[in-house]
Amino acid sequence: MIEERKCILMFASCSCLCPPAGLSAAKLLKASGLDPVVLEARDRVGGRTFTVQNKETKWVDLGGAYIGPTQNRILRLAKEYGIKTYKVNEQENLVHYVNGKSYPFKGSFPPMWNPIALMDFNNLFRTMDKMGQEIPKEAPWRAPHAEEWDKMTMQELFEKLCWTSTARRFARLFVNVNVTSEPYEVSALWFLWYVKQCGGTMRIFSTTNGGQERKFVGGSSQVSECMARELGDRVKLQSPVYRIDQTGDLVVVETVDKQTYKAKYVIVATPPGLNLKMHFNPELPPLRNQLIHRVPMGSVIKCMVYYRENFWRKKGYCGSMVIEDEGAPIGLTLDDTKPDGTVPCIMGFILAHKCRKLCSLSKEERLRRICEIYSRVLGTEEALHPVHYEEKNWCEEEYSGGCYTAYFPPGILTQYGRVLREPVGKLYFAGTETATEWSGYMEGAVQAGERAAREVMCAMGKLHPNQIWQPEPENEEVPACPFVTTFWERNLPSVSGFLKFMGVSTFLSAAAAAAAGLVAYKKGIIPHRS
Amino acid sequence: MIEERKCILMFASCSCLCPPAGLSAAKLLKASGLDPVVLEARDRVGGRTFTVQNKETKWVDLGGAYIGPTQNRILRLAKEYGIKTYKVNEQENLVHYVNGKSYPFKGSFPPMWNPIALMDFNNLFRTMDKMGQEIPKEAPWRAPHAEEWDKMTMQELFEKLCWTSTARRFARLFVNVNVTSEPYEVSALWFLWYVKQCGGTMRIFSTTNGGQERKFVGGSSQVSECMARELGDRVKLQSPVYRIDQTGDLVVVETVDKQTYKAKYVIVATPPGLNLKMHFNPELPPLRNQLIHRVPMGSVIKCMVYYRENFWRKKGYCGSMVIEDEGAPIGLTLDDTKPDGTVPCIMGFILAHKCRKLCSLSKEERLRRICEIYSRVLGTEEALHPVHYEEKNWCEEEYSGGCYTAYFPPGILTQYGRVLREPVGKLYFAGTETATEWSGYMEGAVQAGERAAREVMCAMGKLHPNQIWQPEPENEEVPACPFVTTFWERNLPSVSGFLKFMGVSTFLSAAAAAAAGLVAYKKGIIPHRS
Repeated sequence: MIEERKCILMFASCSCLCPPAGLSAAKLLKASGLDPVVLEARDRVGGRTFTVQNKETKWVDLGGAYIGPTQNRILRLAKEYGIKTYKVNEQENLVHYVNGKSYPFKGSFPPMWNPIALMDFNNLFRTMDKMGQEIPKEAPWRAPHAEEWDKMTMQELFEKLCWTSTARRFARLFVNVNVTSEPYEVSALWFLWYVKQCGGTMRIFSTTNGGQERKFVGGSSQVSECMARELGDRVKLQSPVYRIDQTGDLVVVETVDKQTYKAKYVIVATPPGLNLKMHFNPELPPLRNQLIHRVPMGSVIKCMVYYRENFWRKKGYCGSMVIEDEGAPIGLTLDDTKPDGTVPCIMGFILAHKCRKLCSLSKEERLRRICEIYSRVLGTEEALHPVHYEEKNWCEEEYSGGCYTAYFPPGILTQYGRVLREPVGKLYFAGTETATEWSGYMEGAVQAGERAAREVMCAMGKLHPNQIWQPEPENEEVPACPFVTTFWERNLPSVSGFLKFMGVSTFLSAAAAAAAGLVAYKKGIIPHRS
Repeated sequence: MIEERKCILMFASCSCLCPPAGLSAAKLLKASGLDPVVLEARDRVGGRTFTVQNKETKWVDLGGAYIGPTQNRILRLAKEYGIKTYKVNEQENLVHYVNGKSYPFKGSFPPMWNPIALMDFNNLFRTMDKMGQEIPKEAPWRAPHAEEWDKMTMQELFEKLCWTSTARRFARLFVNVNVTSEPYEVSALWFLWYVKQCGGTMRIFSTTNGGQERKFVGGSSQVSECMARELGDRVKLQSPVYRIDQTGDLVVVETVDKQTYKAKYVIVATPPGLNLKMHFNPELPPLRNQLIHRVPMGSVIKCMVYYRENFWRKKGYCGSMVIEDEGAPIGLTLDDTKPDGTVPCIMGFILAHKCRKLCSLSKEERLRRICEIYSRVLGTEEALHPVHYEEKNWCEEEYSGGCYTAYFPPGILTQYGRVLREPVGKLYFAGTETATEWSGYMEGAVQAGERAAREVMCAMGKLHPNQIWQPEPENEEVPACPFVTTFWERNLPSVSGFLKFMGVSTFLSAAAAAAAGLVAYKKGIIPHRS
């Protein structure tokens, strides 16, 4: 069967965590009077968001779930469909587990007690943000030090910046948690860009006032499901695209279920690496042909452990744990209890190298090890007795390739970044990886999808080029507060600065004493012995 | 049309430079009485070898071309088909172009005149070979320092090892030439393994007695073409595979030209990254699903410039140029004149970052820049007047993804290397990337293809598992000579060793003088003043 569309063909084969990328593009096109079709590889919409309903959990987000202030596009869509958000619990203490001990704390980052570690830690994060300020979010390859930073891994940057193993170790976790990959795998330029386009180290890592502030009541897939419902039979499930032919007037697209579609334009809303699932005629241009082999997806297993009681809150813990321990499967947890207090649950991530190591274990064994570390961190045997367990290993998903998002190994962003969203004939590119704000998140997916839709409208002469990129007004219900830095955060020296200062000040104090002596002598304060 | 085979299905969709990978597997299976089919994505066999015939060139190898001693499997195949080899001309001087000047030389590596640079250079290559000795060629992830070296890029290793910019700059070219990627892109563990499994720094880089010693008379594609001829209508051209279904008793394979094949076993003989062109049912296991997004192909344009006369030989140059110059498009050249002295030609490579920068130029502009640098290096205007030009940009090939071979960015080999040739159900993996000797070369493709064929025979109970891996006797016509190191190559200190030695010897000479004095005093040589 060949289905021909007068207008626009969209497809989101493999669209993932950027559920809204393909769908939000189609939604916008339809609203503009066009006639889009969405081809979805899976038997469900939502991609890297994946809400499952069952009696044990009511509902659970096995994929992308968190939203927060400054993510105004996804919040706008949710509001349109009447999907409510709720705040992830952060009322009680968070806990930082390091060197086998638990340290309760409040705030975004665990505090450092050792003054040298504090200086080091403070300088590291201040420097990352400062470097980020140099990087244009829409063109990181144009940063003044782009080439130098892109040749470095984050590991190398940490080795250059950090004096203490405390800071280096936490820095590794910071990379693991934010991009589900290892500091030695990612380009420093890319990671600094990534943090910057999320609003900086505080915004990306915080629960309250940050990227993890909220979840959707009922689960995040609802946004995609509502859009799919609105689009009706324009959304074709189980339709993985394997062929795109641009040699004729219309683009011909073929799917594994043996359907053929024709359209004037195509938006490819998959992660860049999944463009490889398609055979192109004519071939892609050389740089895009190589780019799509160079941007792997991160590695994560999302794990939800359910308990009869919310025992951690009774002990004064909110459920957020920051765990630094090579033997622990989980690196970060958040309370995942329902907003009404039912279905007590802790959500935790198995990240990057641990994901690759532990993915061969049985589900039961993983649960056992997770409960064990929760029990140690929270200091209670109650953690050893879960009533239910849900997990999702995103590395096994053919049509995602991993989660949360693609990372750039060293050298790639400066040499190939320019073609990331450069159209190829009648193909336009969406997917959260092509976004410039909250790329890697649901927000980025919406930005990318709507931008690609406007590119198509522009190509059709329905829009002026300067309307393609549009800012988004702030969502009134989820306002962003500025992060206020303290005097000490701004002015505390780095360890090297401190050491220099100590050296210089020792010298200076001697010199000053001598100079003061001289002045005093000159001024006659010290009597001349004449 | 559904074609069912009682026995074996092979396919080499996208098999490349490892032309023989799929074909050599099929050849062995057929010789063993089985019934293989080869599915080739392109309209020709040969993959990353690609010989073209035309009146200007007679024939030209646009892809993989060079063979040398220790590459005994490909030499065996060629001999079987009566394909002769000839030596690449290296009779006259090679030339090293650096800092804008040409230095003629003989041997594999350009000599260093500055003694500090010499020590540095000597130590660098000695150390790379010594590190290589630690790395098991069949399992580099088991090297004693595997994790440490895999977290490092070659750039980092060079920064640690090299004291002089002379050594560092040449080291970059050494990576560019051997793996068509940049030192900051590749894992140190992977690159050291790569050089090791080719026989070390001398074997991989040498023309005489090394990987570039010879070419096939008439071009390298002939080997694949002869195998294809032998296999007859078992080889299906223009049959890119897009779907592999292993859910039934037989594996079902579908091609873009809408054919369906069924077989008991499948050998996938593409570069690992091109597994992504196929949709798998069931999905690949998590680690393989992620591995194939993590091993990009290098970047190279192979350029042949033809001249009326072989003017370089008249000037005492053999045609080999080692060019260190950021502004020069080409990094390495070899004489490509026919063995009978006709069709004078210089072959040159545009490598890695230069390939990405220069691929957007016009063919004419590239030729102009190439001739310009040849003219400067060879010191003659004659180089400015080519009579013909052939080039091949491998980055544009959908079914190769690049050339010569896949590289491993930092962190991948230790975490994913184990699954590189691990069978998945009835799928077995060949392709030069899975080889353990001359992986990345035609030789590796044959090793891999034959090994995979024997794995299948073993699965069928026709072979004992210890027969899967088979050594290859040496080809008598192309014997390998050992590389003899000189006393100084073995014993020259590194720069840091030299500096320590200078420091210690200054101290020692003072101490020795004092001690000698004491001894002399004790022995009464210096008269006591008593």
